[in-house]
Amino acid sequence: MAALTMTELLAVPALDRILEPTLQKALDGKAKPPGALGRIEELALTLGLIQGRERPAVKQPVLLVFAGDHGLTRSGVAAFPSGVTVAMVDTLLAGKANANAFARVVGAEVRVIDAGVAADLSDRKGLIQSKIARGTADASVEPAMTPQQAEAALLAGAWLANEAIADGADLIALGEMGIGNSASAALLMHRLAPASLDDCVGPGAGHSPEGMAQKRVVLARAAARSNAAAPMDVLAQFGGFEIAMMAGALLATAKAGVPVLVDGFIGTAAALLAIRLAPAARDYCLFAHASAETGHRLMLQRLDARPLLELDMRLGEGTGALLAVPLVKAACALLSEVAELADVLEAAG
Amino acid sequence: MAALTMTELLAVPALDRILEPTLQKALDGKAKPPGALGRIEELALTLGLIQGRERPAVKQPVLLVFAGDHGLTRSGVAAFPSGVTVAMVDTLLAGKANANAFARVVGAEVRVIDAGVAADLSDRKGLIQSKIARGTADASVEPAMTPQQAEAALLAGAWLANEAIADGADLIALGEMGIGNSASAALLMHRLAPASLDDCVGPGAGHSPEGMAQKRVVLARAAARSNAAAPMDVLAQFGGFEIAMMAGALLATAKAGVPVLVDGFIGTAAALLAIRLAPAARDYCLFAHASAETGHRLMLQRLDARPLLELDMRLGEGTGALLAVPLVKAACALLSEVAELADVLEAAG
Repeated sequence: MAALTMTELLAVPALDRILEPTLQKALDGKAKPPGALGRIEELALTLGLIQGRERPAVKQPVLLVFAGDHGLTRSGVAAFPSGVTVAMVDTLLAGKANANAFARVVGAEVRVIDAGVAADLSDRKGLIQSKIARGTADASVEPAMTPQQAEAALLAGAWLANEAIADGADLIALGEMGIGNSASAALLMHRLAPASLDDCVGPGAGHSPEGMAQKRVVLARAAARSNAAAPMDVLAQFGGFEIAMMAGALLATAKAGVPVLVDGFIGTAAALLAIRLAPAARDYCLFAHASAETGHRLMLQRLDARPLLELDMRLGEGTGALLAVPLVKAACALLSEVAELADVLEAAG
Repeated sequence: MAALTMTELLAVPALDRILEPTLQKALDGKAKPPGALGRIEELALTLGLIQGRERPAVKQPVLLVFAGDHGLTRSGVAAFPSGVTVAMVDTLLAGKANANAFARVVGAEVRVIDAGVAADLSDRKGLIQSKIARGTADASVEPAMTPQQAEAALLAGAWLANEAIADGADLIALGEMGIGNSASAALLMHRLAPASLDDCVGPGAGHSPEGMAQKRVVLARAAARSNAAAPMDVLAQFGGFEIAMMAGALLATAKAGVPVLVDGFIGTAAALLAIRLAPAARDYCLFAHASAETGHRLMLQRLDARPLLELDMRLGEGTGALLAVPLVKAACALLSEVAELADVLEAAG
């Protein structure tokens, strides 16, 4: 497996729609009134186009959970201490996080990646070591990362997605863990959607009214510090490492012609970054869940995305993406396993 | 397994809520911000209450698909001929219907029941023989069934649910197949919701504008024929056998303390009937999917139900219920497999 250059990574080809009439005809010909399976039919069509075949199949979904810390937490944007990132990484490695439980239900493998946790985790068994640095810098006072770090994180995410695909993954789901990352994601959304900062800032993992006020003040300070608008500049200014890696993983997955499940607010911010870098990547994304986090709906609108699920969740870890996996499998099964309507009507006489 | 009497069947006990504080505390104590898994947490609480334990488990979901025909089709309420019911029963038995494909994805068993198909299916291998009659009478000119048939169908559904539970089912999903049954369901909703007939009539499996006009005329004639309002009278007047069996199955499942997944428009009409017969049954219902069929939303409102999924489907067969099975399993996994927040925070220092 050769490492991609940035130029190669950003060269995501437009989705080939040549099979669309064939797939639509196949769907209309299944044993049901045309369109009666609604969004599952739309999903089946999309999967057929992405995989470039009449009978798409998803047998080996892999969730990549990228973990990273944020210098912004030093200015008080998060309700939990940064140390929770490490503790949750250990929980994920022990198979006892929400994402592990959901992954077992839907038959997905979970891979946990240290993208930039602010602690030495080199002794953790089962953890994929891909640390760019021990947390980003505090984006409210200086750039979260250097341009070199931003590129390195993007390429590392791409490498890890390609590795999963080389191992047989036919669906990549993207998750994250990082105290403070809803603050970083809000800044990315603010610049890349673009949208007013007020429309992008929500409670994340939870906040008192005072905490929310503090988060808004700190993010306004960060935004005022730089007028970055180009996607890689915005990433370097506002972070984070795990978001960059998700974006890189998304781009590599799209480039490989593999569908990618995008989770909630943070995941969609990563998708927004990836799509601003390579607009064709949009068509390889399956948006899993509409988060309860402020700003998610608006960001989805900007991406012309309507998620499959709406379960009032706001956790991350890829939990929303995992719950959409059975819908993806059902869409595949519709095209592969269901009888033809013509045969049913013929039998009906 | 002893057969239930009607009196026994309707004696559904109120859901015991004694474990609610314990379950809520357990959910709040999991490794996530309180409430961050939204509807999955609500679902976990409900499952814990229904199963009466702190760690609910769903390992063996069973979909019961009840098939029946409707005399109303002779007056032209359906776009497909009645013979399609037989052909779809054969497709279900062959494992090639949409419900079979989805059941394989979510790990559910499918049992297909002849509740009242208008053909002799006694030679069908694998079909559960429970025929009340060869289709209902035409409800636009006479009662769809006799009071005796209505009771027999209800009790047969109860028997079949209890049989599945005796075989180990810990979640019952209810599906149906029956050309014309959205017409019958619309009449049940009209009387039992209650709601104006216009608010209850939709295109079902599909209709031209002329077909819809005809369906409305026929259903208005049926409604004008009888002023039945008591649930068992409404059932006998407007049918059908598969809807009655779903209602009976729901009541028996509730009585057994087992959660029941309610599908779309027809399934919710059956649930409405069951709940009007025994209001306590409501609390054992998990509403799976908001159908695209006219009237479903209003009927759900009347039952104070907010379905888990909204995928624009309008097929029946239990397809919506099946797609909710992984959400039910995820809710169980949350309570059984996820670490405690206190342990995570302690590790975080």
